Amino acid sequence: VAGKIDIVPLRGLPAIRPGDDLAAFIVRALRRRRLRLREDDVLVVCQKVVSKAEGRVVRLGDVRPGARARAFAERYGKDPAVVELALREAREVLRMCDGHLITATGAGWVCANSGIDRSNQNAADEVTLLPLDADASARRLRRRIRLLTGVAPAVVISDTFGRPWRLGQVDVAIGVAGMVALESWQGRRDWAGRRLEHTELAVADQVAAAAGLVAGKDAGVPAVLVRGLQPRRGRGGAAALVRPRAEDLFR
Amino acid sequence: VAGKIDIVPLRGLPAIRPGDDLAAFIVRALRRRRLRLREDDVLVVCQKVVSKAEGRVVRLGDVRPGARARAFAERYGKDPAVVELALREAREVLRMCDGHLITATGAGWVCANSGIDRSNQNAADEVTLLPLDADASARRLRRRIRLLTGVAPAVVISDTFGRPWRLGQVDVAIGVAGMVALESWQGRRDWAGRRLEHTELAVADQVAAAAGLVAGKDAGVPAVLVRGLQPRRGRGGAAALVRPRAEDLFR
Repeated sequence: VAGKIDIVPLRGLPAIRPGDDLAAFIVRALRRRRLRLREDDVLVVCQKVVSKAEGRVVRLGDVRPGARARAFAERYGKDPAVVELALREAREVLRMCDGHLITATGAGWVCANSGIDRSNQNAADEVTLLPLDADASARRLRRRIRLLTGVAPAVVISDTFGRPWRLGQVDVAIGVAGMVALESWQGRRDWAGRRLEHTELAVADQVAAAAGLVAGKDAGVPAVLVRGLQPRRGRGGAAALVRPRAEDLFR
Repeated sequence: VAGKIDIVPLRGLPAIRPGDDLAAFIVRALRRRRLRLREDDVLVVCQKVVSKAEGRVVRLGDVRPGARARAFAERYGKDPAVVELALREAREVLRMCDGHLITATGAGWVCANSGIDRSNQNAADEVTLLPLDADASARRLRRRIRLLTGVAPAVVISDTFGRPWRLGQVDVAIGVAGMVALESWQGRRDWAGRRLEHTELAVADQVAAAAGLVAGKDAGVPAVLVRGLQPRRGRGGAAALVRPRAEDLFR
């Protein structure tokens, strides 16, 4: 475990559009703050700007809602185009009742409305969809940052999800590159030599939540530098955080 | 949203025993690091040391397991005394299958084994139970810290919980004093003037998760200073984070 950790908000990125070089904007924001990247830094980037840069943007006027989406939207006062998109993005619908639509996305993330996001868009009727493969997005961002700076920090792509049992939303990791997302403590022992029972820590989710403390969604902080964690290097991505359906007691 | 946030581990607390003045130990650890408390700091304290100081410690040898606990423990190779305690601490059993025992505690926290903790205990057959009212524990700690230092930071009591749908554990808040645990964004608007759809942020859970990054459980870091967040002042405690049973889609 490292010493002190710093959570540094990166401000002043422009409105991101499809095809933009997001990594270059982040590198510029770091330079403005006179921060020199280190290999053991973690850059946390909000899903919304990643989706925009990747063109995962849809105009609601272009969507033709089907009967199921229309019926649900009408009953609960929702936008039928948003419901339609959420159903299309879902590989499984967990709950569709009382105005709630909880799905598992293609990548396996369980969240409301398949992660479709209406706030802080570039146009009033635009929404973002989650990146198709946010682990690949994180790897691409990391490669591009290395190309621009010579340094390859870990990259975490975060999104804001609700949870069952607890009120309020927290930021979690949906894409990870250059660090271990799920740290195994198998075999570690406590101070009495007793084997630890809790054997897996969702480090990438805790990094995302920490970044969420400075990345309030109306504050224009689409990226956050986490320094001092010195994360464990490794592959596997955020996919390691998806609980396999067969092991899930709450579906 | 504040600027940079610092997450500072506080080390070197002694093994905590029932009746110990935990606040005094934390204040001493702060002084050793030459940290002067501020009113807008947050002190995150692990449940385990709070439970120990409050005497929420049980020797497994003193527990007589009932038939239900014995049957479950035998079938899945668990300790029957731990299962018995978990059942006694539960106000509701959500799942009891495949070796998993997921309960809601008296305070409403949904977690494995009612939060009973076997690691890092002072004796091999001891376990801690969750504080009966961790919000009250947080308020007591805060009052005592104010008495010792003249300063009343916010206090968060954290524990390490698993989640459905996602693998790995994260730290969450089970007790809060001196700050708003669940921040409402009702009425706030995004940069386009659009009303935000996500209206509640579980700030105290994000603070706990951030502290969890430095408070690895084998590292002897029972308390963490979070500086720079400048949390919103208010009452309500961590109880505000309990999702009412009737609104929960996943029980």
